[in-house]
Amino acid sequence: MICQHVCIKYIIPLSLSSQPLNSLKSDEAGPKQGPTFQDGQRRVDYVLTYHIQKPQSFRRKTSHFGDYRILRSLRRSLSMMRGRDTPPPKEDPEVAAHKHRLDYHEDDKRFRQTEFEDNLREMGLELEKDEGNKIPGIGFLKIHAPWNVLCREAEFMKLKMPTKKVCDVVERINLFIRKATAPLHPKVEPNRAQNMLFYPLLSCQILYDEWASYSVFYKYQPIGLIRKYFGEKIGLYFAWLGVYTQMLIPAAIVGAIVFLYGCATVDNDIPSMEICDPRNNITMCPLCDRACSYWKLKTACGTARASHLFDNPATVFFSIFMALWAAMFMEHWKRRQMRLNYIWDLTGFEEEEIDNTACLLLYVCSYFSLDYVLITLFQEKKVKLTCTDRAPAYMTGLFTMLIMVGVTFAVVFGVILYRISIKAALHMSSNPTARTNIRATVKGTAAVINLVIIIIMDEVYGALARWLTLLEVPKTDKSFEERLIIKTFVLKFANAFSPIVYLAFFRGRMVGRPGDYVYVIGSYRMEECAHAGCLMELCIQLCITMLGKQLIQNNLFEIGIPKIKKLIRRRKSDMDSQQQEDYNMTLQRHEKDHFLGPFVGLSPEYMEMIIQFGMVTLFVASFPLAPLFALLNNIIEIRLDAKKFVTEVRRPIAARAKDIGIWYNLLRGLSKVAVIVNAFVISFTSDFIPRLVYQYMYSPDGSMHGFVNHTLSYFNVSDFQPGTAPLQPMHLGYEVQICRYKDYRETPWSNTPYDLSKEFWAILACRLAFVVVFQNVVMLMSDFVDWLIPDIPKDISLQIHKEKILMVELFMKEEEGKKLLRDSHSNQSPLQPRSRPASHTPSNC
Amino acid sequence: MICQHVCIKYIIPLSLSSQPLNSLKSDEAGPKQGPTFQDGQRRVDYVLTYHIQKPQSFRRKTSHFGDYRILRSLRRSLSMMRGRDTPPPKEDPEVAAHKHRLDYHEDDKRFRQTEFEDNLREMGLELEKDEGNKIPGIGFLKIHAPWNVLCREAEFMKLKMPTKKVCDVVERINLFIRKATAPLHPKVEPNRAQNMLFYPLLSCQILYDEWASYSVFYKYQPIGLIRKYFGEKIGLYFAWLGVYTQMLIPAAIVGAIVFLYGCATVDNDIPSMEICDPRNNITMCPLCDRACSYWKLKTACGTARASHLFDNPATVFFSIFMALWAAMFMEHWKRRQMRLNYIWDLTGFEEEEIDNTACLLLYVCSYFSLDYVLITLFQEKKVKLTCTDRAPAYMTGLFTMLIMVGVTFAVVFGVILYRISIKAALHMSSNPTARTNIRATVKGTAAVINLVIIIIMDEVYGALARWLTLLEVPKTDKSFEERLIIKTFVLKFANAFSPIVYLAFFRGRMVGRPGDYVYVIGSYRMEECAHAGCLMELCIQLCITMLGKQLIQNNLFEIGIPKIKKLIRRRKSDMDSQQQEDYNMTLQRHEKDHFLGPFVGLSPEYMEMIIQFGMVTLFVASFPLAPLFALLNNIIEIRLDAKKFVTEVRRPIAARAKDIGIWYNLLRGLSKVAVIVNAFVISFTSDFIPRLVYQYMYSPDGSMHGFVNHTLSYFNVSDFQPGTAPLQPMHLGYEVQICRYKDYRETPWSNTPYDLSKEFWAILACRLAFVVVFQNVVMLMSDFVDWLIPDIPKDISLQIHKEKILMVELFMKEEEGKKLLRDSHSNQSPLQPRSRPASHTPSNC
Repeated sequence: MICQHVCIKYIIPLSLSSQPLNSLKSDEAGPKQGPTFQDGQRRVDYVLTYHIQKPQSFRRKTSHFGDYRILRSLRRSLSMMRGRDTPPPKEDPEVAAHKHRLDYHEDDKRFRQTEFEDNLREMGLELEKDEGNKIPGIGFLKIHAPWNVLCREAEFMKLKMPTKKVCDVVERINLFIRKATAPLHPKVEPNRAQNMLFYPLLSCQILYDEWASYSVFYKYQPIGLIRKYFGEKIGLYFAWLGVYTQMLIPAAIVGAIVFLYGCATVDNDIPSMEICDPRNNITMCPLCDRACSYWKLKTACGTARASHLFDNPATVFFSIFMALWAAMFMEHWKRRQMRLNYIWDLTGFEEEEIDNTACLLLYVCSYFSLDYVLITLFQEKKVKLTCTDRAPAYMTGLFTMLIMVGVTFAVVFGVILYRISIKAALHMSSNPTARTNIRATVKGTAAVINLVIIIIMDEVYGALARWLTLLEVPKTDKSFEERLIIKTFVLKFANAFSPIVYLAFFRGRMVGRPGDYVYVIGSYRMEECAHAGCLMELCIQLCITMLGKQLIQNNLFEIGIPKIKKLIRRRKSDMDSQQQEDYNMTLQRHEKDHFLGPFVGLSPEYMEMIIQFGMVTLFVASFPLAPLFALLNNIIEIRLDAKKFVTEVRRPIAARAKDIGIWYNLLRGLSKVAVIVNAFVISFTSDFIPRLVYQYMYSPDGSMHGFVNHTLSYFNVSDFQPGTAPLQPMHLGYEVQICRYKDYRETPWSNTPYDLSKEFWAILACRLAFVVVFQNVVMLMSDFVDWLIPDIPKDISLQIHKEKILMVELFMKEEEGKKLLRDSHSNQSPLQPRSRPASHTPSNC
Repeated sequence: MICQHVCIKYIIPLSLSSQPLNSLKSDEAGPKQGPTFQDGQRRVDYVLTYHIQKPQSFRRKTSHFGDYRILRSLRRSLSMMRGRDTPPPKEDPEVAAHKHRLDYHEDDKRFRQTEFEDNLREMGLELEKDEGNKIPGIGFLKIHAPWNVLCREAEFMKLKMPTKKVCDVVERINLFIRKATAPLHPKVEPNRAQNMLFYPLLSCQILYDEWASYSVFYKYQPIGLIRKYFGEKIGLYFAWLGVYTQMLIPAAIVGAIVFLYGCATVDNDIPSMEICDPRNNITMCPLCDRACSYWKLKTACGTARASHLFDNPATVFFSIFMALWAAMFMEHWKRRQMRLNYIWDLTGFEEEEIDNTACLLLYVCSYFSLDYVLITLFQEKKVKLTCTDRAPAYMTGLFTMLIMVGVTFAVVFGVILYRISIKAALHMSSNPTARTNIRATVKGTAAVINLVIIIIMDEVYGALARWLTLLEVPKTDKSFEERLIIKTFVLKFANAFSPIVYLAFFRGRMVGRPGDYVYVIGSYRMEECAHAGCLMELCIQLCITMLGKQLIQNNLFEIGIPKIKKLIRRRKSDMDSQQQEDYNMTLQRHEKDHFLGPFVGLSPEYMEMIIQFGMVTLFVASFPLAPLFALLNNIIEIRLDAKKFVTEVRRPIAARAKDIGIWYNLLRGLSKVAVIVNAFVISFTSDFIPRLVYQYMYSPDGSMHGFVNHTLSYFNVSDFQPGTAPLQPMHLGYEVQICRYKDYRETPWSNTPYDLSKEFWAILACRLAFVVVFQNVVMLMSDFVDWLIPDIPKDISLQIHKEKILMVELFMKEEEGKKLLRDSHSNQSPLQPRSRPASHTPSNC
């Protein structure tokens, strides 16, 4: 059980292409020792890998850039010696890896490598070539950072002193809480965690036991240790995921209660009772032209009862609750982030942004084989791009994005057409079993098709966003990451949510009416909703999307595919398992790590969670169980990600970060949009408003009795357009004169038959009034929560204040001491320490 | 012309009751010298005033607190010697003055004063008693801060180095802009402003000439100089006022264009043409019971045409414009504030909050004569208040606020009743001239009454808010100020806006219909709007409120009343003008300043501007000229305030501040509320939506022809309730069977006569849909503006970054030097500068 570790906190990895060692599999070297140099003494801290290949004429020109890039990383490390402990901006490692491979295409040119290695040595690092490597085409360069280099870096750390003094009662309460929740905390003794850097192997082992295991799913995460091992950026991700999961617990509980309330009250729901009551002998108009016939409302009984589970007054309360929950979550995370910033010493840290245009340009040109462009650019020494240079890329990006969002909509429309046509075909079939299972078949297959398309398109869009961002050649690594994230977010979000949005807001609204239906592509009638609204179908869609996406993407993509890839790699190497094992035995730690998958950044993980957050907040009014599903998924997700990071991928380079960056803005935006989406779901998709309006405006006795009748308009069957009347008008056993349909329209015998009725407009006005009131009240409440909870926890702000005072005092003492020293040197009189000649004073006094 | 000045920037006034000298009137002492100590050399920097009175038994106990308070201020000054250059928290000077008077009630006890003075001397300050004072009962203590004390403070200032390097083109453009706008800049040479501290008299003179004068109204303000003379807090106020005024220019121009567009299109407005057309012989129902008779719609021609000036499609555009304008203004101010923070060296500055409970408790108890409470508290040594102690005050505060807001509403309702009853009385009168002038008389008097009540209540509410805040005994000075501001804001805002809100959203909406009117207090019918909506009346009300409030409050309150007060003071002193003049001649500078009014803080100035900002943004849809009015007022306001600060009040103690504090939040809140208020004004108060709906849903030819007829419902005169039919039914010369009224109701001959019609609901739905769309679109656009404009100007952020690097380098060099010095002292080998034994390393590595 070997994990190699360095005092990584303040040493920035020397190059993005270096590979810190990671995996947990046992090794021949002693567990205390880890891989060392040949002398068996000096520990290997980093390993630089490079391809050994033949030189290529074009690439020779560009390798300057590769060296330049690595050297710049080193400079940045060196600059920390001068007090700026900033990390290199995180870049997508895949790019880095590719670039690296590119950079070293002619590394066999010894003279260049020697120069590069000299630079490394100049920084105090010790190097060793791995001569006995067994992987053809790959060279390894081991790097050891001696103790004095580490200490040099540590010296520039802010010294943090224990100034905290908690009052007795608070202390005792805290102690009690800690004791009560002891089983929830991972078994990481604080002092052990503190000294962990001296025992890196242990820290990896603890992470494996106390974090990356499903058996500890109920425990807090050892965030401090994660951050020590993986760096602040990954630490923040897991901290955020932890906070999110924790916050989901109350939401899941309340959601479950709301659902149970629906279950409990389903028998008291008057409208569904009326629908199910056989005495209300209501004949409905046919659901499709010709093939379908009239039907009894009673047959919709099951759907109506099921709808009540999700469409009841409690969901209104729940969506208000969830809007406030989202505000609380954002605030809670802000505070947690602030606390972590303080504990991790990041309060003064500022990310440094470095112009990256040249490197990226190089990469883009070689990626698209635009050698001639590159040569031109280098001849003109033009590595700063102007607006005119960038415009085509921006235009391409914008149009591709628009087209892609259009494609998403087209896909949704395609699925709609599929549903319509299959439904019509099945209705027409003479097979009675097929006809009875029509609904289930159509809904089931359509949802599955949607899901499959979503998952496939997700991958396509991910690649597309990368490609578009590369084309734009963003100025800095940070802006590269942000642009990529925004693009991916827009595409994936549109992909995941357009079927849901269609179901929630468009389905059943552009249907027309009996005798005047809306037809698409020839003779297909637009889909109608089931009698009790589309909420039920929206629910099913959400359920399938959430479960399916999470199951497939988690299990198949995150676990299955890497395993398959590994298997294929092994197969390729033309060795049987015994040979393979033998070969493995001979490999060194870093050679084994080389076979692990690369770390592809945190964006996919965040993206998955953001989409989930969207599902949880945006349509919570239609699916109160969403938080519960999300909670269950996340409990697994944390440990899954942990396992992946600890054992499945090469150990990522520790990167510093103060916050979760653009993800926070996306979350904030989502929680704002959620308010308005929920307002619309409640007022337009659910039956909440029509019920209220009926009860207070139209009901003769103030009860819900008669509501079903009120929502149904009358249709005179003689008004059917020619060729659309049902083929079997006597299907129900009696002749139908008047059939009913769900809409608010004038009666056939009024002056303006089939016009939208006064009730329609009254209910529409009420729906919109509800949207206005709901949106503003909930926004006000969210702002109030925002204002109520301070961004910085009280104890942290006090602590920061105290430390500032302490720092100033320390500084003043040092100054005093320095002055005395200087005075005693120059033998001046120390009696006038503060008087100065007037000419020395600064000009503003 | 004498202005006394100190290098005040880094010296905190020694006590809140000290009086920096201010006024501009000529003095006997030489203009270069200023008042000095008896030796004629040392300049008087501060003067401490105190009352000489007989001791009182109770107050003896409390004077400890007074001394404690002043000493604490001194400590704070002293603490700056240790690098914390924070100002004393700003407190309302009136409180301070009162407190001070209290504190010194037994100042004749020499032993205490001596102790206090000793403390002052210990800090390096030099004191002199003013023995020859001529004002009975008042003692002066002159304070001189010697050069080395000033320098000691200056030493802890951050050193700012010129690292800025602007590229050539930008430099040239800037130069050109500067030259082009040269006449707009005040004549303050930069270097002169820099060295101004050595010539304080000049700086005051320049302020008087180049700032506090109406003749320079078109120029920028010399903000740097204002800040040097008055401190950052006042500097920020004027900077903010400047930015606001500047931003009002485009708003005023666009507003004027919108108004002119209304003027230009008034002849093409079909609805008002139809109203004015004598051929449309429409008979309207009577406007009041019995006394009024039927009337011709043609008589409303003038109002209809006037309404068009403010109620046209351009106002919709203008309210969107103003919402974005508000967002731009906030962003612009944030940037400006950031820039000022940088220029004024406030980036690292943090306000210190000091617990103030004890002092305030003392003050409150003596204010309300609660001596026994105080004695109990002091016996129990209980100066920290618990929640239970505070609860009664909070409850009192809350209930008083609610009652006062209730009173405001009651006043509005009272004015409504006044209007209704006067109108009825005038209608009943037989005097024909009275009857023709009914409308103008009623509107005019009501608006004036409203205005007078608003102005009176404003003063009452100001005092009330103070009183309530005192009762709460806030913990720190800052929280005192914030609580006071919030209370004052709520009360004054409710006061200023409730009549406007009534006019905009309630008037004419609860009227009922002919035959079923709503009556209040017996037999008064609720007010109706004029035919073309209430927008016109809202306009008049806004106009009168803005103009009246500004004229009266500016001219009467800010200029008139102080003058009158001064006059009264002079009258009281029982001297004729010659004697007075002679007496004045004998007075010293600080004795004259003592007769000036006290500085009462910036809150009233800010409050006035915030209310104005509310008028400009909240109801801009109904009054596009509001920004123009505000602009004109502010141009005067700036110079008026300047004059007041320079000549009328005692020079305020310089206070540091990083931002405008809670005012920013209030502005932000207002600009958010403005979006929704404007949405409602456009959709509900104006005729914009009904016109659109008519044009696209009901118009036979797609034009506006027939709109007026469409908005009028029919009433059968036989349906009048008994005793409400007009006394003179033949007033128009013919018998009326059917009269018309403005509402969307069913016809008398329908199945449901006088019910709200389908058109009503359709239009209501459209109005609400507009609100939803408008609010969300404008909010999205505002957020976009917010996101588009970075909070920190690019050049400033670059500069800050560069300085940080420079600072680090400087620090490192110093460290290096220190080490070398230390090494050479201890005669150690300097060859191993960085290696340390392992045991010395911090525990986290």
